Amino acid sequence: MRTQVAIIGGGPSGLLLSQLLHRHGIDSVVLERKTKEYVLGRIRAGVLEQGLVRLMEEAGCGARMQAEGFEHRGTLIAHGGESFRVDFAGLTGKPVMIYGQTEVTRDLYAARESAGGRIDFNVADVTIHDADSDTPHVSYSIDGAPRRLDCDFIAGCDGFHGVSRQAIPLEVRRDYEKIYPFGWLGILSKTPPVNHELVYANSDRGFALCSMRNEQLSRYYIQCSLSDHPEDWTDEAFWEELKRRIPPEQAEKLVTGPSIEKSIAPLRSFVTEPMRWGRLFLCGDAAHIVPPTGAKGLNTAASDVNYLYRALREFYEKNSAQGIDAYSKKALARVWKAERFSWWFSSLLHRYPEQSAFDLKIQTAELEFLRSNRAAQQAMAENYVGLPY
Amino acid sequence: MRTQVAIIGGGPSGLLLSQLLHRHGIDSVVLERKTKEYVLGRIRAGVLEQGLVRLMEEAGCGARMQAEGFEHRGTLIAHGGESFRVDFAGLTGKPVMIYGQTEVTRDLYAARESAGGRIDFNVADVTIHDADSDTPHVSYSIDGAPRRLDCDFIAGCDGFHGVSRQAIPLEVRRDYEKIYPFGWLGILSKTPPVNHELVYANSDRGFALCSMRNEQLSRYYIQCSLSDHPEDWTDEAFWEELKRRIPPEQAEKLVTGPSIEKSIAPLRSFVTEPMRWGRLFLCGDAAHIVPPTGAKGLNTAASDVNYLYRALREFYEKNSAQGIDAYSKKALARVWKAERFSWWFSSLLHRYPEQSAFDLKIQTAELEFLRSNRAAQQAMAENYVGLPY
Repeated sequence: MRTQVAIIGGGPSGLLLSQLLHRHGIDSVVLERKTKEYVLGRIRAGVLEQGLVRLMEEAGCGARMQAEGFEHRGTLIAHGGESFRVDFAGLTGKPVMIYGQTEVTRDLYAARESAGGRIDFNVADVTIHDADSDTPHVSYSIDGAPRRLDCDFIAGCDGFHGVSRQAIPLEVRRDYEKIYPFGWLGILSKTPPVNHELVYANSDRGFALCSMRNEQLSRYYIQCSLSDHPEDWTDEAFWEELKRRIPPEQAEKLVTGPSIEKSIAPLRSFVTEPMRWGRLFLCGDAAHIVPPTGAKGLNTAASDVNYLYRALREFYEKNSAQGIDAYSKKALARVWKAERFSWWFSSLLHRYPEQSAFDLKIQTAELEFLRSNRAAQQAMAENYVGLPY
Repeated sequence: MRTQVAIIGGGPSGLLLSQLLHRHGIDSVVLERKTKEYVLGRIRAGVLEQGLVRLMEEAGCGARMQAEGFEHRGTLIAHGGESFRVDFAGLTGKPVMIYGQTEVTRDLYAARESAGGRIDFNVADVTIHDADSDTPHVSYSIDGAPRRLDCDFIAGCDGFHGVSRQAIPLEVRRDYEKIYPFGWLGILSKTPPVNHELVYANSDRGFALCSMRNEQLSRYYIQCSLSDHPEDWTDEAFWEELKRRIPPEQAEKLVTGPSIEKSIAPLRSFVTEPMRWGRLFLCGDAAHIVPPTGAKGLNTAASDVNYLYRALREFYEKNSAQGIDAYSKKALARVWKAERFSWWFSSLLHRYPEQSAFDLKIQTAELEFLRSNRAAQQAMAENYVGLPY
């Protein structure tokens, strides 16, 4: 089989790239290790930057998002039992869009399917060949039967544990990593959200986040120990702990109910450099991970897709390699800004086991500076709604 | 002897407080452990916020500063061989004033002397008595002869190593501290400054700062090891190292010459809480220390003096204790913002022995964000020129 762009990974990055290329007449095949149902069953992010919103529209996939998504024009930040609001719309002119990653993925699958795009599911033994030549190919198997996909380019959209990053030789690649000494225990529940906007809370007992998917579906998180297991936490224990960490005003009106999903995620910052090797391009989690605090995971993947899709169009439409040659540098410049913001916002809101009394005071001073200083709020808001591509 | 306010310490804080009180008819006596010549021989900061400039004017001591000082309307920040400018005046409407702490102190001595203000030099065995009563006093000796100073209030302006902070019982006091794993090697030289504004440099070899006192007097610093001694560094070695750390543009035009002072200062963040105990009030370095990176030492002392002098006026002029009761909280709120800024600006510009490759990348991303984002520059500039009192 032959295609122009082999896309490894059928999550939102791979699908979005495939759909955007299709809109400009560039053919691709998506290879996904799991089933569509499995991919759609993963609970992930739900805060979209305007850049991603525009890309979804450019991909012809914006209709349901615009109809069912929620615009959030600000967020609450709570500390010491009080909270203040950062007015994204007032400070930057831009809101964020609340729309689950699962829904983004669902819309992209629908678009790929209706366009007759090829997605191979349940692929195994995916191997990248000759990425450093002009004739790369990908070998894989389905139900034990070997397949071969010849292509011009390979897009590695297969996440942190995928094969794409590993295909770049270690002597070329450099990894940067930070592991945070805590995790996030998250639950999804069919309850109305406690607040119409997100509430980020730094409390004496650790971080908490009140988030939402829609008016009847809430997503809540609390900072937990890395040694905790989701089964250690009953729903009751979760709700009680959450109430202790958010301002009384919110705790009083919190509607609780059974969790329909409960999981613990570790927090990690990770970047690999470069993001391109020959004709292989890394996108999204394959190249970088952020702690979820700043909601930058899916959004940073989208910014990679944006750069890569424009670079590939430049190649096919104008016969110019300028875009693909600049891809890694351009993508990484924005990635590191998102990494910095996510690291900073995490540092601001969590309790760290190694924090000294001085460190805690500095954290409080930083929250107080953010509360009281318009320029600090503006810098935060510009990052949160998304720096320009 | 009796006075209204006993001021321990004849550095700039104590003198400024004494002079400001005098202008409003409040009597004080200043006790200084050293001689005037010794105090004036100390080389210290040279960047004054507008708040301190206004206080000097309010004290009737602004004339020479206005005539001989230099307004700096911005600063250069260098990284990776390039530099960018933060335009203080454009972003905040305010410049900073370049005028040595030594000159501030000299002007304040002149004012106190011409007003017949009492300053006892060479005092020893200074002891604070009954600060938690309405009738405090200070005992001390000069040339072995015991003295006693009765007063309404005591202002502890005697620096980090002074007796004032120690007079607050440990069960009342809490100290917060961070020690930085490096020092600053500084020289003063009779050479024209390399740039008309300050140059802060983060280089692979560590931090460097090009500062100045006037058009023929330069002050340069380089980050050094805590185990270094000034005598290990010849002038030649200093200049060579400085040139390697600043952008080529500056290195080429750097005028070198013999140092007239050379010293190493450790970097420390320190705050004690509360800043008031009964009738004792701490001001400046007696209560807090910042690393010198943000030029906040003298300026934060001045903000304490501002709050305390207004509180004491309120007491004597309106018979109200509101100001003195609010002093510690008010002063500390601003102190912690200065501590946060000094810690952040130090973190941005120095190399740390424990920095991981990820940490270094985040530092670079933060410099790049500051270079490219107006709101980030504005938040930095507002801190640098001085947050409002």
